[in-house]
Amino acid sequence: MDTITTTGGATTTGGAAIEETDRLIASDKVEGTAVYNRQDEHLGAVHNFMVDKSTGRVAYAVMSFGGFLGMGKSYHPLPWRVLNYDTQRGGFVVDLDRSRLEKAPTYTAENMPNWSDRTYGNRVDEYYGMSPYWGMI
Amino acid sequence: MDTITTTGGATTTGGAAIEETDRLIASDKVEGTAVYNRQDEHLGAVHNFMVDKSTGRVAYAVMSFGGFLGMGKSYHPLPWRVLNYDTQRGGFVVDLDRSRLEKAPTYTAENMPNWSDRTYGNRVDEYYGMSPYWGMI
Repeated sequence: MDTITTTGGATTTGGAAIEETDRLIASDKVEGTAVYNRQDEHLGAVHNFMVDKSTGRVAYAVMSFGGFLGMGKSYHPLPWRVLNYDTQRGGFVVDLDRSRLEKAPTYTAENMPNWSDRTYGNRVDEYYGMSPYWGMI
Repeated sequence: MDTITTTGGATTTGGAAIEETDRLIASDKVEGTAVYNRQDEHLGAVHNFMVDKSTGRVAYAVMSFGGFLGMGKSYHPLPWRVLNYDTQRGGFVVDLDRSRLEKAPTYTAENMPNWSDRTYGNRVDEYYGMSPYWGMI
């Protein structure tokens, strides 16, 4: 991750606008952003994130790590609310040690969860000690 | 846009998970999704969207159209709240005719707005008759 200008920073890569401000961040900038824990360990990177179409809220960020060209990658969904963006580091920080992450809900490309069933999202929220996001408006 | 399975549909392209459910949609699925108006005209596609880091809300979707390899493309930010996802069509629908869109706030890669200044977002919200998103929690 390159250094990010956080106040009115706007850079262009290959014609695609990448922007970040003190409040707003572009979706394609979130994807690929590094995730660290408070011990400053690099846990992975944001693969993509799940948006609630009806409320416009980001529900989960899916962190990926490992793998080569998408093969063998594992995905860890995290409630969006546990992520904090650290402008200094240019990445997200979560209060999560490796051992807790290892026991967390995870899946691979061959083993995708069914997000339409709230059970899966609830399991993720519960593991990280968050109230179900579904109740949020 | 291919036909989308909307109930528990999960497909994999090149190892990247693409998912959509009745409520949740993956960020990388939103990007590239077609935008139509109520007259069934294809207006463009979602280039990316702006997320409020502090609230986790999607504030604006940036629609792009025209151009070649990113050159000459123009970008139209739309308040997220004016977009409705049509599962039948596999795209977003906005109540917007072409003439109104032509007069709307727009920019190019050479002429990026400063999103950190709320003035720009307010102008977008105002043009589309929406209250400023900043007040939302």
